[in-house]
Amino acid sequence: MSELTMGQYSLVFNMLSFTIATMLAAFVFFMMGQSRLAPKYRISMIVSSLVVGIAGYHYFRIAESWGHAFTLTAGKYMASGVPFNDAYRYVDWMLTVPLLLVELILVLNLSREKSGPMLTKLTIAAFLMIVTGYPGEISSDTTTRAVWGFISTLPFAYIVYILWVELGKVMETQPERVRVLFRNMRLLILATWGFYPIVYMAPFFGLTGANVTVGVQIGYTIADVLAKAGYGVLIYAVARAKSENDGWSLEAAH
Amino acid sequence: MSELTMGQYSLVFNMLSFTIATMLAAFVFFMMGQSRLAPKYRISMIVSSLVVGIAGYHYFRIAESWGHAFTLTAGKYMASGVPFNDAYRYVDWMLTVPLLLVELILVLNLSREKSGPMLTKLTIAAFLMIVTGYPGEISSDTTTRAVWGFISTLPFAYIVYILWVELGKVMETQPERVRVLFRNMRLLILATWGFYPIVYMAPFFGLTGANVTVGVQIGYTIADVLAKAGYGVLIYAVARAKSENDGWSLEAAH
Repeated sequence: MSELTMGQYSLVFNMLSFTIATMLAAFVFFMMGQSRLAPKYRISMIVSSLVVGIAGYHYFRIAESWGHAFTLTAGKYMASGVPFNDAYRYVDWMLTVPLLLVELILVLNLSREKSGPMLTKLTIAAFLMIVTGYPGEISSDTTTRAVWGFISTLPFAYIVYILWVELGKVMETQPERVRVLFRNMRLLILATWGFYPIVYMAPFFGLTGANVTVGVQIGYTIADVLAKAGYGVLIYAVARAKSENDGWSLEAAH
Repeated sequence: MSELTMGQYSLVFNMLSFTIATMLAAFVFFMMGQSRLAPKYRISMIVSSLVVGIAGYHYFRIAESWGHAFTLTAGKYMASGVPFNDAYRYVDWMLTVPLLLVELILVLNLSREKSGPMLTKLTIAAFLMIVTGYPGEISSDTTTRAVWGFISTLPFAYIVYILWVELGKVMETQPERVRVLFRNMRLLILATWGFYPIVYMAPFFGLTGANVTVGVQIGYTIADVLAKAGYGVLIYAVARAKSENDGWSLEAAH
């Protein structure tokens, strides 16, 4: 990643800027949208706004770091020597990935006996998944990368188990529209989270160079927009459906 | 665009700054103005505040980029070599143009059966209109520009059809004052959105140079202020008229 064309550099920068704008807009929507929900579902939107707020902050930092990592010289963007800080993404995920699972449990409004243990198990698994991935990510040794990558997959598999098997049983008691939305959310989690291990494995296939760097940054960005802002909109739709299902009316809102 | 006079450079920069101030003020007004509307119309103001919030962010970025694109040398602003980033406008439109149509449908408070399909059709058409315009915008070849410009016109024509024909029928059932405001909004959309293809076509008429650059930036800025902040104020007026028409009283608000 020592040299980028103007088009490559700008494409990444503009995608990062697009994501800042999207996360900020999502933050405002999740904050304001609470007034359209029955009070017990508003907590899921508070957590959604934390997620996109944290992500918006990190994307601002990532865009700054991208700008500092290159210098425009004779129509090309050359590596400036200041490293591009990829750790922002891991710090972001360490905070936001557990919160994304918290949103999901909170919007279902399960009994405290059911939601309490599930929240504990999911947040610990999500946290372990991110922190065990990082030592592999920063290692240039493929064996180290493979070992930490494998360890990180175990909590991920456990999360998938909880969402499909344990939560699958709970969902049977929910209204039809909520069940459909929940299935879509679970698939969105699988599809968007699935992108991260693909990027993680790129070095094993000898994928390096400017095009790979650009592809990785754009892929991460699209995955984050869908997994945070898009996912939050689905959570909002679930909360709206459940509010209406509970007989709560917008006219009663303050 | 290699050289600008101090007056040309400052005129654009001050117009960009004017727009940042206007968008921020509009954001606060749309946020606070919600309390003056019946609850069901507040969602249109939430979406209006997203639009001017996103635009305010992009105008801040555009003003920064304008500043970096020129260097003051011997009383003239010379191109610094850092390109002026026009992509911010397209990223902005990609997000805001679909939302402007969403505002319009939401404030009418139609039945879910009517509003659902219309929202889907309009947002997809608006998104396609913007993304198909961009390949032509960045091309220096006039044929490529013409082809993408033509493709981009098709979803625009479809939006006009929906607003005039399909929505025209729906509007017959709305109160008189709402019908007048709606007709004004539709004309504002046509007048302001109509400026963008004019700029797009400028290269076909051999219009280039510093004066054209300055004219384009000022034109875009005026169009954006009217199409986003001005349009949002009209949406607010519709929401007020409909709130009163529904018998909702400001005395009942909190």
